[in-house]
Amino acid sequence: MSAAPPVRALAFDIFGTVVDWYGSISTELLSIGLPVDAAEFTLAWRAGYQPAMADVRSGRLPWTNIDGLHRRILDRLLAERGITLPQAEAAHLNRVWHRLNPWPDSVPGLQRLKAKYTLATLSNGNLSLLVAMARHGGLPWDAVLSAELFHHYKPDPEVYLGAARLLDVEPGELMMVAAHPSDLRAAAVCGLRTAYVRRPLECGPDGPMEPSAPGEFDIRCDSFMELAEAL
Amino acid sequence: MSAAPPVRALAFDIFGTVVDWYGSISTELLSIGLPVDAAEFTLAWRAGYQPAMADVRSGRLPWTNIDGLHRRILDRLLAERGITLPQAEAAHLNRVWHRLNPWPDSVPGLQRLKAKYTLATLSNGNLSLLVAMARHGGLPWDAVLSAELFHHYKPDPEVYLGAARLLDVEPGELMMVAAHPSDLRAAAVCGLRTAYVRRPLECGPDGPMEPSAPGEFDIRCDSFMELAEAL
Repeated sequence: MSAAPPVRALAFDIFGTVVDWYGSISTELLSIGLPVDAAEFTLAWRAGYQPAMADVRSGRLPWTNIDGLHRRILDRLLAERGITLPQAEAAHLNRVWHRLNPWPDSVPGLQRLKAKYTLATLSNGNLSLLVAMARHGGLPWDAVLSAELFHHYKPDPEVYLGAARLLDVEPGELMMVAAHPSDLRAAAVCGLRTAYVRRPLECGPDGPMEPSAPGEFDIRCDSFMELAEAL
Repeated sequence: MSAAPPVRALAFDIFGTVVDWYGSISTELLSIGLPVDAAEFTLAWRAGYQPAMADVRSGRLPWTNIDGLHRRILDRLLAERGITLPQAEAAHLNRVWHRLNPWPDSVPGLQRLKAKYTLATLSNGNLSLLVAMARHGGLPWDAVLSAELFHHYKPDPEVYLGAARLLDVEPGELMMVAAHPSDLRAAAVCGLRTAYVRRPLECGPDGPMEPSAPGEFDIRCDSFMELAEAL
């Protein structure tokens, strides 16, 4: 066995890892006065995401980007609660996913990491969503990569291997950074390095976290500043 | 006819429009002491580019990215001149296309434009080349888009329409910015808006410029600062 190659680029999961979807969306729901339990509605919106992607993966739905999937889920949640919104308001609310705020350590940590590494998004979010979010939050990406470019959603291997190909690095030179062990495990199967950033508040103050084993990932840390230290 | 929609995003040609390939490459050839006429070699390297892309477009070559095409041309030019370079030196020299310097107005102009518009590359250069160049020159892109994402080279319509799709804008909301009338004409056929930035030094002090007609493009200017003024 030769030594592992040096890491040259970092690929970041976005929802929950870089930005706080729970806090950003529940706050916006309260501010617009939607007559729902903001916390519960936020969690339900996010919970619809994996089944919707599974419908695309299985072919039950044709390729649909995340803006489209978020909108399908939103329309269902509103209908279940007997709420009707004007089209323009529903479209604006759906784009709350473009306006998610970074965790406090995200921007300073990324700026520090950028001095040494190429930084890319690697999210199931569509490219235009990720671009709008970066402009909203000041996220200093070198490249905005999305599952949309590969017409496959994570954890399909096409996404991780496609990112390495576009960045012109070997899989072992690319480190996946995520708050979700399942994402990291799929990246590791493709040969990527892995950094687990714990985000205990991702699903709100009482939210569960996916279990993981100590030593399972190359790096385990609690912020992007710690990640920069560890690298 | 309804009024034209407002421009929401700008797509930039890169080689010659944003960066000075002639000056950057001829300077590097002189600095490494390659025994060639630096100006002539630089122009010959660039001149090999359109025929190489035509070979991909016609199917005579399978899909090959620009790093690969630049290397094929470089190897031919060196062989024609009886020059042998060690592999590592040839690979480093080929990556001079990753180290091209911006025109003096490029970075301040882009920073100004970025306040109002989404800024994307739209180049035949491969994605990793464009990312390295942005890091080298401090180019503040919101999105790095490349012909590589579409497996078509400009002026194929798939490139212009693919960029609009990924940025989630209508073709008429996207403005192509280029120093080359032929690129702009192909974009206009796809419904994009057009900004012609004259770069009279692109091909060196005596270089020719493609002819264009007055009024042919939505904007005609001499720098990105002028483009920001005009928009």
